[in-house]
Amino acid sequence: MTTYKIAVLPGDGIGKEVMPEALKVLDSVGRLCGIGFDYTHFDWSCETWLKTGQMMPEDGMSQLAQNDAILLGAVGYPGVPDHLSLWGLLLKIRREFDQYVNLRPVRLLPGIPCPLANKKPGDVDFWIVRENVEGEYSQVGGRFAEGTEAEGVVQSAVFTKLGTDRILRYAFEMARKIGRLHVTSATKSNGLYHSMPYWDERFAAIGAEYPDVRMDQYHIDILAARFVMSPERFDVVVGSNLFGDILSDLGPGMTGTIAVAPSANINPEKKYPSMFEPVHGSAPDIFGQNIANPIGQIWAASMMLDHLGETEAAALILKAMTDVLSTQNAPRTPDMGGRAKTSDVGNAIAEAL
Amino acid sequence: MTTYKIAVLPGDGIGKEVMPEALKVLDSVGRLCGIGFDYTHFDWSCETWLKTGQMMPEDGMSQLAQNDAILLGAVGYPGVPDHLSLWGLLLKIRREFDQYVNLRPVRLLPGIPCPLANKKPGDVDFWIVRENVEGEYSQVGGRFAEGTEAEGVVQSAVFTKLGTDRILRYAFEMARKIGRLHVTSATKSNGLYHSMPYWDERFAAIGAEYPDVRMDQYHIDILAARFVMSPERFDVVVGSNLFGDILSDLGPGMTGTIAVAPSANINPEKKYPSMFEPVHGSAPDIFGQNIANPIGQIWAASMMLDHLGETEAAALILKAMTDVLSTQNAPRTPDMGGRAKTSDVGNAIAEAL
Ligand SMILES: CC(C)[C@H](C(=O)O)[C@@H](O)C(=O)O
Ligand SMILES: CC(C)[C@H](C(=O)O)[C@@H](O)C(=O)O
Repeated sequence: MTTYKIAVLPGDGIGKEVMPEALKVLDSVGRLCGIGFDYTHFDWSCETWLKTGQMMPEDGMSQLAQNDAILLGAVGYPGVPDHLSLWGLLLKIRREFDQYVNLRPVRLLPGIPCPLANKKPGDVDFWIVRENVEGEYSQVGGRFAEGTEAEGVVQSAVFTKLGTDRILRYAFEMARKIGRLHVTSATKSNGLYHSMPYWDERFAAIGAEYPDVRMDQYHIDILAARFVMSPERFDVVVGSNLFGDILSDLGPGMTGTIAVAPSANINPEKKYPSMFEPVHGSAPDIFGQNIANPIGQIWAASMMLDHLGETEAAALILKAMTDVLSTQNAPRTPDMGGRAKTSDVGNAIAEAL
Repeated sequence: MTTYKIAVLPGDGIGKEVMPEALKVLDSVGRLCGIGFDYTHFDWSCETWLKTGQMMPEDGMSQLAQNDAILLGAVGYPGVPDHLSLWGLLLKIRREFDQYVNLRPVRLLPGIPCPLANKKPGDVDFWIVRENVEGEYSQVGGRFAEGTEAEGVVQSAVFTKLGTDRILRYAFEMARKIGRLHVTSATKSNGLYHSMPYWDERFAAIGAEYPDVRMDQYHIDILAARFVMSPERFDVVVGSNLFGDILSDLGPGMTGTIAVAPSANINPEKKYPSMFEPVHGSAPDIFGQNIANPIGQIWAASMMLDHLGETEAAALILKAMTDVLSTQNAPRTPDMGGRAKTSDVGNAIAEAL
């Protein structure tokens, strides 16, 4: 029996409520497929920060490095400035483990009311490939003339050729892998004078290596509009850290609830562990009621299995999830219009396996 | 009779097709309300750039300065790099005339098929206040290590206190003016380490001057999702140059067609002329067929009249526009599902006056 070492980081808020459901489902599928999981639990969170001024201990990264993968809940809580909690945990792990690919499906699932008119499962089904470690997310910059009338702040985005080329290449490879030979690039080269013309240039250069893949590019403003107006036209969408972030919340929003969407932070070379999390945040407003939707976390666990090479187990989770969603009387959390508890949904999916 | 000096800049592509319709409607409403328009036509465009290497002549800005307002079509055409055409004309005018407010309505109009399920006019109706002259749109930065493996590019956003405070204040004033005491700020302070925490800080500070106005803030990713999931909850949304840009295409996209949406580039102090344009671009793909929707340009003309203090004439155009859209057999351009020509729509609105 293969056993995987998994770092379990529920983090803050509803992260703590949805994580047990994902582990429940993992254990079920593990029994079914003869896979073992050796969990190490980490309670790093905003509470840690309030106590210690750090989101993780000094040797936190080397503790994580001993695992095959990381399953993360959500990070961020009122009382700790967002940029400190995120740069101290989520963004730190993405960067230091060179998880330069963020991969997110945008897929309309059965049984979820869709805010778009006349769409059914199958109509919205594509992938977002997001650059995950550089670009607009950057600590380069700072304040000037602080305390005077001339005060202000500079925020510098840094795009490297290495970082840009490898994410673009991943998108083209992904298009081939899923057999949908079409990549759409998010740009804003009309407004952002230096970064996006460079991005476009690299998109053209890397695209030339994939003559079999059709290329499209749109400015991020009109691209966001087209997501809503004609989601059918997308297959693989590639974007910078910020643009990918925006599109990969908008996409799940369009499909009814961001609570079901997963996010894979991948180091494709497997030099470091990759990290899997739901797209949603820690949702302080609903924390404590046990009504958070665990499906994003469960789908993230499925993506983790896929990454570990356990494709059959990954597919089984996805199928159980879809089966439950397709069932008329299945438990649904309030975000999907139901009254079920977090654990009801987790139980239903674990049983469906 | 008051006569206004108007600089008319059709620009590129369909800008040239929709502009005559707006002038037609302006002339009609002028006759009705006793307002005169003294048009000066400027043919500055990407063709100018191809001939001269500049988007406008050396004394272009002082020619424009002699007008009470500028009516612009669209800028940008294949063959001229977008960042050169835009920074040479549209963005140059916004900046040099200190049009620091970009004001855009997001409003579902009658008779336009809406991509959102179960929405009717009235359900989607709010304003976007966008910072228009600084922030992410910046020429600060450049390439490093060009031609080597270490190549890359830095793009610096600059936010000043002056620039941030005045746009936030405008948003709060706007909320009071329209009697909807609620402002939502677009942020991304969890990822953008320097700029957005500063933006949030200023939002809190300026908001404290408006205790009667309810304040909300969302990260841009989840905000985009919420636009689609619950557009009813917005009244005035304020965002940086880039975030405002994205939201103000997404908004109109949600209401069926970005072709009807207008954009006002305002210098509130009236030290310089303000500029009015449709949200859509030059649309090279449909240029030359006379099928572009002129409603965005016509609505922009209405916003221009509003700014000039001709509120009655402005309202008449809006009413004529809405009346035509509400009429079952009114001419509709292909983007609205019809087969009408650009000029049919312009004629119908001019006649409805
Ligand atoms: C053409 C482009 C530079 C412009 C912008 O990004 O401001 C446009 O998208 C707009 O919104 O007016
Ligand atoms: C929490 C935040 C820093 C993060 C991001 O912007 O990357 C989140 O929105 C995401 O998409 O994973």
